[in-house]
Amino acid sequence: MLNSGIRALTFDVFGTVVDWRSSVMHEAAVMELRVDAGKFADDWRAGYPRAMARVRSGELGWTSIDVLHRQILDELIEKYKITGLTEAGKVHLNRVWHRLDPWPDSARGLALLRRKFVCATLSNGNVSLLVDLARHGGLTWDCVLSAELYRAYKPDAKVYLGAAETLGVKPAETMMVAAHKGDLLAARKAGLQTAFVERPLEKGPGGGADIGKEDWMDVYAKDFVDLARQLGVAA
Amino acid sequence: MLNSGIRALTFDVFGTVVDWRSSVMHEAAVMELRVDAGKFADDWRAGYPRAMARVRSGELGWTSIDVLHRQILDELIEKYKITGLTEAGKVHLNRVWHRLDPWPDSARGLALLRRKFVCATLSNGNVSLLVDLARHGGLTWDCVLSAELYRAYKPDAKVYLGAAETLGVKPAETMMVAAHKGDLLAARKAGLQTAFVERPLEKGPGGGADIGKEDWMDVYAKDFVDLARQLGVAA
Repeated sequence: MLNSGIRALTFDVFGTVVDWRSSVMHEAAVMELRVDAGKFADDWRAGYPRAMARVRSGELGWTSIDVLHRQILDELIEKYKITGLTEAGKVHLNRVWHRLDPWPDSARGLALLRRKFVCATLSNGNVSLLVDLARHGGLTWDCVLSAELYRAYKPDAKVYLGAAETLGVKPAETMMVAAHKGDLLAARKAGLQTAFVERPLEKGPGGGADIGKEDWMDVYAKDFVDLARQLGVAA
Repeated sequence: MLNSGIRALTFDVFGTVVDWRSSVMHEAAVMELRVDAGKFADDWRAGYPRAMARVRSGELGWTSIDVLHRQILDELIEKYKITGLTEAGKVHLNRVWHRLDPWPDSARGLALLRRKFVCATLSNGNVSLLVDLARHGGLTWDCVLSAELYRAYKPDAKVYLGAAETLGVKPAETMMVAAHKGDLLAARKAGLQTAFVERPLEKGPGGGADIGKEDWMDVYAKDFVDLARQLGVAA
């Protein structure tokens, strides 16, 4: 059995549960930023691992994603020579990361998975952002867990081990669900099981998404409904 | 307006959301403990603030409620001369605190309140216990917060302030909901708004519940549905 002993699932959120790229592109259009929206979204997202690396290295103290997103946005406003945004407009735009739309299967697949497993977020996004995303997308979690609670960012093992401890389960009874191999490899190293979910459009229609089955993955799923089916939940 | 500026509600759980006494009594009967079930439930519950006080004073290091409940249970097994319980039976009995039934209005009132406010637990119970209670009782939270995340027990101000910070709101934008005045007074001192909810049967039909309106309470409600009505949510 693939899912022998699984009691809890922990989910990466950006890219795995929600489609950050098209949501940010939509916001760039609505806000009339007059930029290449796809490139702007990609640049904003690309700044995020760099910013987190500065926190992980100790160069920056603990800094929430909201603050990191704003620092990156301020750089992009210069780079793209975006004018006419008031401070209130910048605050609103920065909070697009609280209003990202879920992939079409996310809410339904999650509801199926919750019939059998405790389902929690496990994101580098801060808790209040994750709560907003859930309310925005109609997603129901058993528990909202974030790197913020462990004062460390994924792929630090502390985050995966902390989540299992908080949920009262062993690492081996926990399955990390993500559309990114790096996240799953780190979870696996910490002793968790792993489920890869394909999100071929995460980086846009031009490709570049992190897909492809690997031997070490415990489950490889097309989407959350397929994941539920593979884990023995009848749809 | 009573609720001016409220963005998040944080809920005490034992006694406020769930009816611990009748749930423990039911379990004592099912497990055939041959004890005065009401007295047994009251004794078990009474041991809990004493045990937490030992953690707060530093006599005990950080100890989860599951472990504290088990220590109290072991004392009660001696006191009541309960025989015939296997270790597996004791583990099962101790987990009755993960299977407490909600008050009849809890799920419906919570669903109403979530239409307008972010709703989170804020209990001294550990996260995994709170997740189990929510799944058992069909309760949907935006976020499960616990004293465990702040490594301090209510009424320590750190817990109330920590919850507001985690939810990304100011203390004054947060309303603590509880059936116990001590909890609300501590929340108020930390700068939160307060809503008292009457649970006249918490200590059983003989009375003893902590009820009665006080001037300092921002809201005094009969139950969660009444609280929703008073906070401007149309039923």
